[in-house]
Amino acid sequence: MVGFWHRLGTKGKALYSATLSPPFSSPLTLPHNWVPTQTPIVPSHLGATGQTQSAAEIMSGKPIAKDIKLRVAAEISRMKAAVGRLPGLAVVLVGYREDSRAYVHIKLKACDEVGIETSIVQLPQDCTQDRLIDVVSSFNSNPTVHGIIVQLPLPQHLDEETIINFVSPEKDVDGFHPLNMGNLALRGREPLFIPCAPKACIELLLRYRVEIIGKNAVVIGRSKIAGLSTSLLLQRHHATVSTLHSFTNNPEQITRRADIVVSDVGIPNIVGCDWLMPGAVVVDMGTNSVKDPNSPRGFRTTGDVCYEEAIKVVSAITPVPGGVGPVVISMLLSNTLDSAKRAYGFT
Amino acid sequence: MVGFWHRLGTKGKALYSATLSPPFSSPLTLPHNWVPTQTPIVPSHLGATGQTQSAAEIMSGKPIAKDIKLRVAAEISRMKAAVGRLPGLAVVLVGYREDSRAYVHIKLKACDEVGIETSIVQLPQDCTQDRLIDVVSSFNSNPTVHGIIVQLPLPQHLDEETIINFVSPEKDVDGFHPLNMGNLALRGREPLFIPCAPKACIELLLRYRVEIIGKNAVVIGRSKIAGLSTSLLLQRHHATVSTLHSFTNNPEQITRRADIVVSDVGIPNIVGCDWLMPGAVVVDMGTNSVKDPNSPRGFRTTGDVCYEEAIKVVSAITPVPGGVGPVVISMLLSNTLDSAKRAYGFT
Repeated sequence: MVGFWHRLGTKGKALYSATLSPPFSSPLTLPHNWVPTQTPIVPSHLGATGQTQSAAEIMSGKPIAKDIKLRVAAEISRMKAAVGRLPGLAVVLVGYREDSRAYVHIKLKACDEVGIETSIVQLPQDCTQDRLIDVVSSFNSNPTVHGIIVQLPLPQHLDEETIINFVSPEKDVDGFHPLNMGNLALRGREPLFIPCAPKACIELLLRYRVEIIGKNAVVIGRSKIAGLSTSLLLQRHHATVSTLHSFTNNPEQITRRADIVVSDVGIPNIVGCDWLMPGAVVVDMGTNSVKDPNSPRGFRTTGDVCYEEAIKVVSAITPVPGGVGPVVISMLLSNTLDSAKRAYGFT
Repeated sequence: MVGFWHRLGTKGKALYSATLSPPFSSPLTLPHNWVPTQTPIVPSHLGATGQTQSAAEIMSGKPIAKDIKLRVAAEISRMKAAVGRLPGLAVVLVGYREDSRAYVHIKLKACDEVGIETSIVQLPQDCTQDRLIDVVSSFNSNPTVHGIIVQLPLPQHLDEETIINFVSPEKDVDGFHPLNMGNLALRGREPLFIPCAPKACIELLLRYRVEIIGKNAVVIGRSKIAGLSTSLLLQRHHATVSTLHSFTNNPEQITRRADIVVSDVGIPNIVGCDWLMPGAVVVDMGTNSVKDPNSPRGFRTTGDVCYEEAIKVVSAITPVPGGVGPVVISMLLSNTLDSAKRAYGFT
């Protein structure tokens, strides 16, 4: 587990390890007696069990999300009793994308379940940038709003960067503001908010007791929503991280050497079992709709990983749906609660 | 050069490549007829020449630094003629470290050579945080100061993060402010300043016409000054980047697969030729003092890479001293000039 440099001795110089900050550990991470798994997962072909064929642990996100929601709800009750206030989340939705509406619906429903107050402003597809900034601005200055989400993607005529810059970093529960991203990248600093998707990824790994420190991790994709920030967060947990993207040559070769594979590509089944080292741990962040005439809706949701193939090879994998997704939503609740706690000085 | 996903077809989804922002290209990068090299370097064992044995190109930084200084000086003359102002750099030095004093001396001398005005405040080893913040604050509000450097490391009792946060992002010519780091990490955004060390690394690669896009790059070390920010910048240039650190197992194996190796470790000779793929390109950012009874000063400066071994294997390598170092200093001048241009609206 301890890397090369530690064995070198100091030779009169401080090694990096001397200045390493502790990795983030989620305040929601449970003690070791938490189910669903009791057995630490060592993501390696030299792993603890040696049995990889058809013995993959399915890392469901549902029990984790349920547990986090219960904890968030309990904290909200405690806060309400102490300071007489509830956390508030504001959502801005521009235009008529079906998928965005569906995501917003899921988020609002989850807020309702745990006791977070919500406001939603829906703006027409052709709304001006100034109008959108006005709306964000009013939420920035509203003391009952502790988290602001501008649902992405925005219509083409609106400048996403400008809008995200405009969200107060203190209410940026998505964690997309460059100040939060910079503080995530820089060891020794604490971002106010960790983006929900990478936070969910790490939470899954920690809860299923997957060793991260010193492991070779490959993150396929580099979106700010998931890939980039997951690379940064895994690095804070002292994994050796390689980030793959559309210009990468032979991604399957690089991925095949990884103990931990995180996929954020958005292409169904791109990661086949020939991409995976036996015993690897796979977190599939893809959410892709594929046609399925057997489904009542005519389509089904699938990840980036050939799940049926992969489970024969890996030591653990998240399913899609039901893996990362539910945990991401619960992290949004958790970030909103944290923000409200900060606003009211409640601990 | 074009990666896997491009060959997949779109399957009705936008591929990453569709949304890739252009990589940074330094405004100082010269046209193709610039010497020192006319031949593109393809960093691979399948490279253009096929000759790697003893045929390494030595990527000297001196001619590049000289060229950048000439250009910066010419721009400063032009600005002075147009708006009657010079760029100003302020340096804050706390305590009595010999190495810090030497670095500051080099920076001030270089400023003087190109026509940048400098101010330096030296504070005692035991100065209070409030006093240091006062000094930074006065530079923040001084319109003749366009760049502020707080020389690192600071004495232990001072909080580096707080101080760096206090430097105005508009004058953060070191590029260490989390807002600049976040904008460096996020594609599609432009940081006000790219930190000097990674900017120098990329400048060297570009000037020696090393292909970066799609290449496997390994960055050994993750300091904000060099390693972390170089990883982020190489990724913006569409390299596939793996970041190694003190917890990495078998760093030599991972490094051996890299087309481009950047070392920011601070341990002399840690990277031997058995760490390097034949034909790789090596940028050595280490600056280490080692005892040398044959040197008049009793020590000499060396990098992280076993240079004598490496030149027999690699296709190109930066020497230490005389490689990255001089270019880093010239990038500080360039960042300060850019800042002054922005302040005066001069283009």
